[in-house]
Amino acid sequence: MTTTPETLIVIGGDAAGMSAASQARRLKGPEELKIIAFERGHFTSYSACGIPYWVGGDVKSPDDLIARTPDEHRAREIDLRMRTEVTEIDVEGRRVKSRNLKTGNDVWTHYDKLVIATGARPVRPRIPGIDAPGVHGVQNLDDGQALLDTLKETKGRRAVVVGAGYIGVEMAEAMIKRGYEVTVLNRGEQPMATLDPDMGALVHEAMNGMGITTVSGAEVTKILTDSDGRVSGVATEESSYPADVVILGIGVTPETTLAKAAGLPLGASGGLVTDLSMRVRGHDDIWAGGDCVEVLDLVSGRPRHIALGTHANKHGQIIGANVGGDYATFPGVVGTAVSKVCDLEIARTGLLEKDAKAEGLQFVTVRIESTSRAGYYPGASLMTVKMTAERRTGRLLGVQIVGREGAAKRVDIAAVALTAKMTVESMTALDLGYAPPFSPVWDPVLVAARKAATAVRKAGA
Amino acid sequence: MTTTPETLIVIGGDAAGMSAASQARRLKGPEELKIIAFERGHFTSYSACGIPYWVGGDVKSPDDLIARTPDEHRAREIDLRMRTEVTEIDVEGRRVKSRNLKTGNDVWTHYDKLVIATGARPVRPRIPGIDAPGVHGVQNLDDGQALLDTLKETKGRRAVVVGAGYIGVEMAEAMIKRGYEVTVLNRGEQPMATLDPDMGALVHEAMNGMGITTVSGAEVTKILTDSDGRVSGVATEESSYPADVVILGIGVTPETTLAKAAGLPLGASGGLVTDLSMRVRGHDDIWAGGDCVEVLDLVSGRPRHIALGTHANKHGQIIGANVGGDYATFPGVVGTAVSKVCDLEIARTGLLEKDAKAEGLQFVTVRIESTSRAGYYPGASLMTVKMTAERRTGRLLGVQIVGREGAAKRVDIAAVALTAKMTVESMTALDLGYAPPFSPVWDPVLVAARKAATAVRKAGA
Repeated sequence: MTTTPETLIVIGGDAAGMSAASQARRLKGPEELKIIAFERGHFTSYSACGIPYWVGGDVKSPDDLIARTPDEHRAREIDLRMRTEVTEIDVEGRRVKSRNLKTGNDVWTHYDKLVIATGARPVRPRIPGIDAPGVHGVQNLDDGQALLDTLKETKGRRAVVVGAGYIGVEMAEAMIKRGYEVTVLNRGEQPMATLDPDMGALVHEAMNGMGITTVSGAEVTKILTDSDGRVSGVATEESSYPADVVILGIGVTPETTLAKAAGLPLGASGGLVTDLSMRVRGHDDIWAGGDCVEVLDLVSGRPRHIALGTHANKHGQIIGANVGGDYATFPGVVGTAVSKVCDLEIARTGLLEKDAKAEGLQFVTVRIESTSRAGYYPGASLMTVKMTAERRTGRLLGVQIVGREGAAKRVDIAAVALTAKMTVESMTALDLGYAPPFSPVWDPVLVAARKAATAVRKAGA
Repeated sequence: MTTTPETLIVIGGDAAGMSAASQARRLKGPEELKIIAFERGHFTSYSACGIPYWVGGDVKSPDDLIARTPDEHRAREIDLRMRTEVTEIDVEGRRVKSRNLKTGNDVWTHYDKLVIATGARPVRPRIPGIDAPGVHGVQNLDDGQALLDTLKETKGRRAVVVGAGYIGVEMAEAMIKRGYEVTVLNRGEQPMATLDPDMGALVHEAMNGMGITTVSGAEVTKILTDSDGRVSGVATEESSYPADVVILGIGVTPETTLAKAAGLPLGASGGLVTDLSMRVRGHDDIWAGGDCVEVLDLVSGRPRHIALGTHANKHGQIIGANVGGDYATFPGVVGTAVSKVCDLEIARTGLLEKDAKAEGLQFVTVRIESTSRAGYYPGASLMTVKMTAERRTGRLLGVQIVGREGAAKRVDIAAVALTAKMTVESMTALDLGYAPPFSPVWDPVLVAARKAATAVRKAGA
């Protein structure tokens, strides 16, 4: 007796989608589960986070950014349909409509189980000139290639980056490496709005030191073009900046157009709402993960949208396990993020001061400066650690670090402490690795914890 | 009305003792607390861990290793008596006898409160020739200077290091840097007995790659000397090794001769036994900290002796707080240690397999290899992570890491997880910092946690 295999459809061929497909395939063979994956682009399972390093020249080929090619997926019996865009989800009828982008043909395909991994799309302000040649987003490998093609053709060496978040600062570094004169236009007062302003100011200062011009409070109103219609500059409310190439690094928003049209639940962030098993709420046979979903922030207890490859990979793994009949959950995040601009390392986890305020939390904050290694050991460099702890309970609420080599990954100490809901007092006793090449005798995180614990006590009753 | 100040006596002028004195002084002025500290050597508050880097030439002067000089302590109204050795503690009479090493004079001094911070002494095997010129320990700054003096006078370039623990491998690197031909004689089968043998083997292999000869199973029987009585080699049970200089790096034992003679409680390790406030058990007015005490291992629940500057500093801080009328405790350690030999980074925390067995624990172990950065990012290097978890509960028991740049401090993730008694399953969801320059999309620790969680499930009932 043979049974008909169930059909799993995956929408989106990058981290979350293909991790889910691969994990499901590991658990169930094709005789039990047919897997069809749709990807509208040219690439699968690639590292979008690697694009700045490819553009900057540290990574030689886009192939290096691809963890698994379409053929590798197909070899594992995943029916992968490239350049095929899903245009509709019929939840009631358990089917999706897809369009072959080469032929324009539309077909409906039935599913028993569905995984939505449609990712995020870059924010593109609706301003004049935004679609002019020479204006580039950097969301996917196609975008990266298009930018590199532009750079090859462009003689001028002036680059304007719009946005001073992760993508903005990483792209600023990439363009510096390519020998461009780089101006970063930032809507806010400090770069890295994912940091508190006082920590963002340290990044600002360091960026200036690298020769990056950073303009604060810059509201972009228009992309300027030359007589050929090609980009020639960027106008803000107050000024204008000549540009041979413009890079948009304003951030991303969940790509949930399909899901919304299908009536699936979206949260305040626009991301899909799932349960802990990454199943879309109210829909037993639909899962979603990666940049198109909201995740639970374990520190605030509220949902957030965070587009980050490491979460997408975890989601995919968890969805694949559940779809494949195993069991796994995604408990949530604590908001850890690290980034690098030239030799500056930037890290954060937990809540910013404004986040904590918005949750009604009262807290103390401390800032300390210490070194990455024993002060006498060659290469020791300064880092600033900011720590926030709840008043009374002393519970750790957040940590931000700005420094040089060895600074960023220290945030992991705080990420684990946040997960474990430790107090700053208990953190002062943490048995962290000490040897002169790696840390002063008091690790900078311990120094901050001691100061925070004292501040909690002083804030007292 | 004036009251007579109490007298605090501190025995030992390095990390634990002088941190205690300084912290007590911060809390109580001289009108309330008189502080007398005795140090038999020439230096105070120095980093013994920095000696290999001074000998190796990375640190130019012993002054760089001194956090606070005698005069700086005196400026803070601590009555510091250098070159003065305490020779007896009279617990009943609340007084200590000290000898001025310059004059030979003995005096008794009364105390109200006593801090014992006598440190550790290097293990010196009782074998012929052990006191020959050219044989050096490296426990304190005086030792370091003596070794450097020897190196200056010695023409030959053959160094033999006895012992392959932290001090042994760090000194091997130092001597390589000085252009010596280095042989490390190791009693065990693998260097770094603080690692499981399979991880020690990775260090062994890497040391060979650095041009360090490592001899396993080498039981040293005799120091060979020339006609002048100066060291000329080291004999083992099976062979002999010519040497122009011999460095002892066999480990240390708590220096508790005084405490033992005074009838204070010592544990199985020979270290003083204290309560959580670092007070010597059964003695309300005597505290002890640093390399002369036992500490609670939070993973095994048993006392251990660990000589490490970072613990000594914490102890000092805690003792000083309690002596000064504040309140602080040292909950214990999880056994974290990191070290570096050339570009090899070595880290461990928690229990070794043999430790876990000795505690009656059943466990699974996994080993994974991953990279320090995204595979495509320049400078990504391999690291091996070994993880041990308890059977059934899945509680993390230990992590060991051997790799290159970026490997060692990752052990802090595990150190916090051990403190929080996390399971490896819960560790798989940790929100660790991810960006291509700092980590693959799955941090090596997450990769190990996933494999360990699977192993726990497979070990099943």
